[in-house]
Amino acid sequence: MIPSPIITLVTDFGTADPFVGIMKGVMYGINPGARIVDLSHSVPAQDVFCGALILRAAAPYFPRGTIYLGVVDPGVGTSRRPLLIDAEHGFFIGPDNGLLSLALNEHKIRRITNLDDDKYFLNPTSRTFHGRDIFAPVAAHLSLRLSSEGFGSPADDFTKIAWPPVVRADACLEGEIIYIDGFGNLITNIEVKDVYWLASTRLTVSLRNFKLHGLQSSYGSGVGRDLVALINSWGFLEIAKFCGSAHLLSGAKVGERVVVQCDD
Amino acid sequence: MIPSPIITLVTDFGTADPFVGIMKGVMYGINPGARIVDLSHSVPAQDVFCGALILRAAAPYFPRGTIYLGVVDPGVGTSRRPLLIDAEHGFFIGPDNGLLSLALNEHKIRRITNLDDDKYFLNPTSRTFHGRDIFAPVAAHLSLRLSSEGFGSPADDFTKIAWPPVVRADACLEGEIIYIDGFGNLITNIEVKDVYWLASTRLTVSLRNFKLHGLQSSYGSGVGRDLVALINSWGFLEIAKFCGSAHLLSGAKVGERVVVQCDD
Amino acid sequence: MIPSPIITLVTDFGTADPFVGIMKGVMYGINPGARIVDLSHSVPAQDVFCGALILRAAAPYFPRGTIYLGVVDPGVGTSRRPLLIDAEHGFFIGPDNGLLSLALNEHKIRRITNLDDDKYFLNPTSRTFHGRDIFAPVAAHLSLRLSSEGFGSPADDFTKIAWPPVVRADACLEGEIIYIDGFGNLITNIEVKDVYWLASTRLTVSLRNFKLHGLQSSYGSGVGRDLVALINSWGFLEIAKFCGSAHLLSGAKVGERVVVQCDD
Repeated sequence: MIPSPIITLVTDFGTADPFVGIMKGVMYGINPGARIVDLSHSVPAQDVFCGALILRAAAPYFPRGTIYLGVVDPGVGTSRRPLLIDAEHGFFIGPDNGLLSLALNEHKIRRITNLDDDKYFLNPTSRTFHGRDIFAPVAAHLSLRLSSEGFGSPADDFTKIAWPPVVRADACLEGEIIYIDGFGNLITNIEVKDVYWLASTRLTVSLRNFKLHGLQSSYGSGVGRDLVALINSWGFLEIAKFCGSAHLLSGAKVGERVVVQCDD
Repeated sequence: MIPSPIITLVTDFGTADPFVGIMKGVMYGINPGARIVDLSHSVPAQDVFCGALILRAAAPYFPRGTIYLGVVDPGVGTSRRPLLIDAEHGFFIGPDNGLLSLALNEHKIRRITNLDDDKYFLNPTSRTFHGRDIFAPVAAHLSLRLSSEGFGSPADDFTKIAWPPVVRADACLEGEIIYIDGFGNLITNIEVKDVYWLASTRLTVSLRNFKLHGLQSSYGSGVGRDLVALINSWGFLEIAKFCGSAHLLSGAKVGERVVVQCDD
Repeated sequence: MIPSPIITLVTDFGTADPFVGIMKGVMYGINPGARIVDLSHSVPAQDVFCGALILRAAAPYFPRGTIYLGVVDPGVGTSRRPLLIDAEHGFFIGPDNGLLSLALNEHKIRRITNLDDDKYFLNPTSRTFHGRDIFAPVAAHLSLRLSSEGFGSPADDFTKIAWPPVVRADACLEGEIIYIDGFGNLITNIEVKDVYWLASTRLTVSLRNFKLHGLQSSYGSGVGRDLVALINSWGFLEIAKFCGSAHLLSGAKVGERVVVQCDD
């Protein structure tokens, strides 16, 4: 027996309230063989960019055909469209507000479906909890290997979220902090390819008054240093503190400027 | 192969300690095909009403035959009975302190079993962790489709939790806040049927000094307003703030009075 | 069909970031029939002792053959070895920093494998996230019932974590608080066997200025008392407050001294 594709969830619902459990109840009711994996339910409320980043970070590590269900949805019940995007690496279901877009960068899109056919919705369909009434039942039916064409009419495009650009100029990169993880590591939008563009191994990373010389290869290389810079497991430049929190030590917040300079 | 019925968990154990994982270990040891869904483990410690409300909110969305396992159990190891309640919509297992009662309202009860037969308990059976030693093994054995009669002697009744009444008087409803969700939405005990009883669409909802005119149909209808009132996804009157927290804005707490008046 | 052995996870990753979900994606990609149970992801950052204690508390309640995957790993990417320990009661995978050791006490070890063969690793293998790149793929392949010999060369020993000793002297036990659970219960290193050694039922437990007379058998025995002492569900002496937090009431912290004296 071929197991059902995985359905993986990203929401801003938290885990104290039963919203996530209710979505799972709906899905298991439709597909008793559903395999559901929580990615995160602690996206800050209404923080679409954070949810999109988590989807982008996780998608490369799931099997092809995985169903990515995202609900960070301040516009629930308004005119924003509910979408199903069928891409080469998986199916993405959620509101058309940019949440799904970062994980789709550079990937081939096969079909975009506006979820305007209510035959798979819960009935009645609320205007306050589409996670339960639209997205969960669509994901569960899709996990039964229905074709994505059955869920609504084709759409031409979907909302892309703005990605803060890295400025490359004069043997220098200028980026910013885009995410702070639970260890207090400061993750920037500067990617490996940007660092390669500098074509130098003698680098200084600057954040506030901190100057970090060189990129380390592991957190443990930072014993005895205040902060270290390294390329993290998502391929981004990260500022960390060994056995500590770079966030607490530096006070830096999401959006703050980080500069990488060649020392040559 | 027919999959095992879902076992869904509500506790006040949190997820930092391994208590929930231990219960799952016990259940998988008994039924390797168990399907376990977390509803919430963040019920405030010993808050039986909150746990009961979560069970009530979630039960309509799970398949028939689901096993609801609840452990919010300050009286563990005392004379309070451990129960298994076999109802038309599922099996409810937990302490007889009201935790199971709100989800059973208006549903047909088939049998109430006092879990006084220890043959399915872990041995030795502690007096401090019945979740592990009594409720988990009973739920797992039940998920193997054993008859509920094998778990103990029949009981006549179970403890009902007090539900705060909504006062209907003079084209006016008086209720209270019963739950505050992770978004800061203020959920009241006023139900759709109460609002229908008013038989008016021109309503004012009052909380502290806030007067909210009319019921909105979605959170997004609240753009530019301070607070909005709507019927939420559980069928209750809720006071919310679009992309914000009604709880933080109003300072209102569980138990505070909310009034709905006709403006006709 | 025999179900896959359970893979159970203990980490300090939290559940807000997608790290745990990513590990699960890797494991389901390798073994679509994997059965994964979360023990805790809220181990305080880099707190190897706490992670080891959680593994010790939980392992007795999982089926034989369970795979215990632990990632509390400040030394990731340095010279510390990644290990697979094949013991009579299960397989233990994680960094060689003591994390796995408390759960292995008194159990027969069959083989210790240094995970130095990269054929099951993700490629490329980062030096910052061995949970994803080494431990998850090894656990998933092991859950397909591969022999542990295929994962690397044999090792002679593994790092044991220091366990704080209980001093037995003069009809008196001196121990300390080793863990504080989510209810605020203060769990000590004093075990049932230590209490038996005292060979008395008239005991006084001392913590700061609190003197607790006798051991109770349940939390509910503490109605009307400030604090109670009891043997908890893990077999340790615990100081608790009925429907309250002994931690908040006493202000006591991990590492503080607790004394048990005979009153005879």
